[in-house]
Amino acid sequence: MEYYSSHINKLIEEFSRLPGIGAKSAQRLAFHILNLPKEQVEELSSAIVDAKANVCYCKECYTLTDQEICPICRNEKRNHHIIMVVENTRDLAAYEKTGKFDGVYHVLHGAISPMLGIGPDDIKLKELLQRLTREEIEEVIIATNSSVEGETTAMYLSKLIKPTGIKVSRIASGVPVGGDLEYIDEVTLLRALEGRVEL
Amino acid sequence: MEYYSSHINKLIEEFSRLPGIGAKSAQRLAFHILNLPKEQVEELSSAIVDAKANVCYCKECYTLTDQEICPICRNEKRNHHIIMVVENTRDLAAYEKTGKFDGVYHVLHGAISPMLGIGPDDIKLKELLQRLTREEIEEVIIATNSSVEGETTAMYLSKLIKPTGIKVSRIASGVPVGGDLEYIDEVTLLRALEGRVEL
Repeated sequence: MEYYSSHINKLIEEFSRLPGIGAKSAQRLAFHILNLPKEQVEELSSAIVDAKANVCYCKECYTLTDQEICPICRNEKRNHHIIMVVENTRDLAAYEKTGKFDGVYHVLHGAISPMLGIGPDDIKLKELLQRLTREEIEEVIIATNSSVEGETTAMYLSKLIKPTGIKVSRIASGVPVGGDLEYIDEVTLLRALEGRVEL
Repeated sequence: MEYYSSHINKLIEEFSRLPGIGAKSAQRLAFHILNLPKEQVEELSSAIVDAKANVCYCKECYTLTDQEICPICRNEKRNHHIIMVVENTRDLAAYEKTGKFDGVYHVLHGAISPMLGIGPDDIKLKELLQRLTREEIEEVIIATNSSVEGETTAMYLSKLIKPTGIKVSRIASGVPVGGDLEYIDEVTLLRALEGRVEL
């Protein structure tokens, strides 16, 4: 790309490294930046650096936060005896948006995946088990994704936790609300059948 | 978005202001940044600031460059008597990629659009006319987009330049190479018919 100056090329290159941004989008973003007022560019740049510098893991639940203990773990109104285990902070946010779960969370930061070489030690599993011995927990709700990795992690976790006598549950899988049966894959349809509830 | 810490929210907000990046993509980008090594984050951030700080308009052709005069305008091997007028630096790069145009460029940084309130004074038109009186130009090739704004700009430009006796041409519009007639709009088909060439 010799048609652009080295600074523009560098910016395009940096943008195209980000997930979901191809060569064309990276170009568009780079020229958008060049046309922005200087203050806005500096705001973007410092938001990036500041977030990286200030965001850390909550010492309790390992979500990404900018305090030692995240607001959810600090909230005394929440039920600290129920832990929902999620794969990442975005999944935590998805459940928080429902506004109906009043327990606390544990963020694994990944899922077990032999394919990608991610074992139990590469995610925050040990930390969860330590919490279970340290705190008084009544139930662990496993809300990992409904993918091969998520299911593997759920199975592994339940085998580890069950012997301790703590109740372990898994969020239901089935037909999504508003979903049209015609367009839903067979595995999901079978799951929905297996998990049917009496009315 | 109280589920995230303020630094994360700020980063998501900054990303979602960029063109073509919605709320979900902005979240994905933000968490991607948080998982990157610190050096890479700083590299991205400084690429943004550096590009904005160092990139300016070429004093000849007004393309975005980091030198006073861009490499194309400085290149003595190029034909400085033929100017191709484009809307922006990306369009210049598109023609440079063909490697077949050996003239120089003039970048307008926009096109006349009464709808958006962009008049002839808002783009680098004056600067083009000054070049035409200052330099010895044989031909001006108008390569603005084939949109309403691009066509308006082309018409306006040709009316201004023709009285000076300089040859003015417009890039051809018609069926794109590899295009299937069946899927091409009627206006393009008519243009292709009008612009037919004898074999």
